[in-house]
Amino acid sequence: MYETVVLNQQVRVIDQEMQGIGGQKLDMPSLCSADLWKTSERWDLMGKELFRLKDRHNADYCLGPTHEEAVTTLVAHQATLSYRQLPLLLYQVTRKFRDEPKPRFGLLRGREFYMKDMYSFDMSEEAAHKTYESVCQAYTRLFARLGLRCVQVQADTGNIGGTLSHEFQLPADIGEDRLLVCGTCSFAANVETLSPDKTDCPQCSTGTLVESKGIEVGHTFYLGRKYSNIFKATFSNHQNKPTVAEMGCYGLGVTRILAAAIEVMSTEEAIRWPGLIAPYQVCVLPPKKGSKVEEAAVLAEDLVHTLGQFLPHLRGEVVLDDRTQMTIGKRLRDAGRLGYPYVVVVGQTALEEMPKFEVICQQTGETVFLSKDGLIDLLRTVETV
Amino acid sequence: MYETVVLNQQVRVIDQEMQGIGGQKLDMPSLCSADLWKTSERWDLMGKELFRLKDRHNADYCLGPTHEEAVTTLVAHQATLSYRQLPLLLYQVTRKFRDEPKPRFGLLRGREFYMKDMYSFDMSEEAAHKTYESVCQAYTRLFARLGLRCVQVQADTGNIGGTLSHEFQLPADIGEDRLLVCGTCSFAANVETLSPDKTDCPQCSTGTLVESKGIEVGHTFYLGRKYSNIFKATFSNHQNKPTVAEMGCYGLGVTRILAAAIEVMSTEEAIRWPGLIAPYQVCVLPPKKGSKVEEAAVLAEDLVHTLGQFLPHLRGEVVLDDRTQMTIGKRLRDAGRLGYPYVVVVGQTALEEMPKFEVICQQTGETVFLSKDGLIDLLRTVETV
Repeated sequence: MYETVVLNQQVRVIDQEMQGIGGQKLDMPSLCSADLWKTSERWDLMGKELFRLKDRHNADYCLGPTHEEAVTTLVAHQATLSYRQLPLLLYQVTRKFRDEPKPRFGLLRGREFYMKDMYSFDMSEEAAHKTYESVCQAYTRLFARLGLRCVQVQADTGNIGGTLSHEFQLPADIGEDRLLVCGTCSFAANVETLSPDKTDCPQCSTGTLVESKGIEVGHTFYLGRKYSNIFKATFSNHQNKPTVAEMGCYGLGVTRILAAAIEVMSTEEAIRWPGLIAPYQVCVLPPKKGSKVEEAAVLAEDLVHTLGQFLPHLRGEVVLDDRTQMTIGKRLRDAGRLGYPYVVVVGQTALEEMPKFEVICQQTGETVFLSKDGLIDLLRTVETV
Repeated sequence: MYETVVLNQQVRVIDQEMQGIGGQKLDMPSLCSADLWKTSERWDLMGKELFRLKDRHNADYCLGPTHEEAVTTLVAHQATLSYRQLPLLLYQVTRKFRDEPKPRFGLLRGREFYMKDMYSFDMSEEAAHKTYESVCQAYTRLFARLGLRCVQVQADTGNIGGTLSHEFQLPADIGEDRLLVCGTCSFAANVETLSPDKTDCPQCSTGTLVESKGIEVGHTFYLGRKYSNIFKATFSNHQNKPTVAEMGCYGLGVTRILAAAIEVMSTEEAIRWPGLIAPYQVCVLPPKKGSKVEEAAVLAEDLVHTLGQFLPHLRGEVVLDDRTQMTIGKRLRDAGRLGYPYVVVVGQTALEEMPKFEVICQQTGETVFLSKDGLIDLLRTVETV
């Protein structure tokens, strides 16, 4: 259940960033007609990765792993598209399907997963490169907001095609991609794009390339006119002449970012979500029923009420774990497993003359004792979507 | 694009109502293993309606048209489920797939569509009936909030199974279901459940049954132990003994509600969305560039600003249609096609000594002339999600 809450919040952050650069959200079908994929020649090219099926009339379909064909056809059908409406950025956040030979690690690489895919249409190569750049910057902002270190590396264009491509990689030991990063300049690339024994930086030629592992969480492609030529996606230019659009496409592995974030942020004891999208920001623990400090229970309820009152941005983000038949220790372990960024224990110290709450900050692992005002000040700066 | 915005808002209303009765949201896969469906015997029963496919290892899958098998297995795997945690209400809003012989009217009956499906688990038949009732009430509330007249009728259980079932039907001429409604008592049923020439009410026996047509937008089933027996979905009862849960399942056609609402609410000239989920609540039209009243343009911008200031619930809900190269008439027609509930024309009357705005209320078709304060008063009561 918590995964669904977090997924929804992550989609909201993605929506903000994509709409921030002019992206318009839509929803394309999962069932894709084979005709379109045969036209682009990817019906054969995709091989076993493509899930294929037939309908009751024996017509061929595939489950869309990506939607270049569908979106380009959609734009081709807009009879009146003018250069004034460009760049046109269309995106969706939907389930994609890929018959992976080795699905692994649950959400990290499943055969069915949520992906954000955006497609851009521009009037010239120059304009398309500007759009490409603006999407890369939006990706960089997104990962920064999620508190994830991300490296943008040169990448292969694979069966999508095009002439320019970058991957967004989260450095992680369990990553399956091998990256080469220059110690001197800004150069970074997927090993696939270089000769395997390369050690000198091809950009600055003085630096040495250092290898690390990464989890691919985003991929951008400058496509040129590959799909727009095939499907006749045109716009009217300044002279009112139909002109083939320059395209780009941009993927983000929505479920994979979630899985990768947990992988790189969590510890043995505690799950850690990116704070911004955590399912709840604060969990308050009243004392165990029948314990010496049972009377502090009312202070816990009071605290939840006060937080709601003084911190409107945290409304709906504070949980009271009132399973008071359980010990504090047991509930603390559960809180660790669920990944609340802040856990507040209301116990002995809350009953003292100068009442203090025990506050465990999951992101840093620190424990601090704070007065009610101190706690409010701490939580005032917590960002939510 | 607007459909996606409206769809998202509708999902928010559904989330509110489902979580209001204790529903917990999750996300189950579309690719369903044939094994589960063979176990329930629906693999054969579903016939051609089920989209079937094989993966690269030649294993059989179907695209889930509904998820009784999956959710019951999920609950069966919760080793420690206790009667204290019941009723358990799990739901999702995902794409479903059904190989319809005759897909029609776009979103009204597609082969791929969004459905909300909820599944309930209870400790006794009595408790399950109470849950069933509470879901039906939530559905009724939902349709009331959307401003849609909806009839709850007795229905067939079809291949889902179970012993009790209702459909939620929107009366509409293009509807494909035939309903019989008693003119005297509260009885209402799908024709399928009665003998076709029935004219006397089987409930009050004095009333006459009147036939009408309806679009099915929701369906509820009391399942008993049909699936929980097969998949061993049990909980620990008061005596700590494993006991088979009583189940119900409850569908809402999310995309279909949208299509049906447009169908029953719209006119020849104007699309009408349920006000609560309209893509934007207000569209402000400044005068055409170069027209006699061009100077009113600044008043239009000023109005948008004022509305944002005085009506925080409408922030992000007010659109300024600044395509001022187009006539007011042309933009009014576009506004009608997009379905903004309120369209405000800023023209001649806004420049008079007692400035008035021309306000077109799409839901009623009325046009009124209001001062700025009058407009703010009118819009203050507009509900948003």
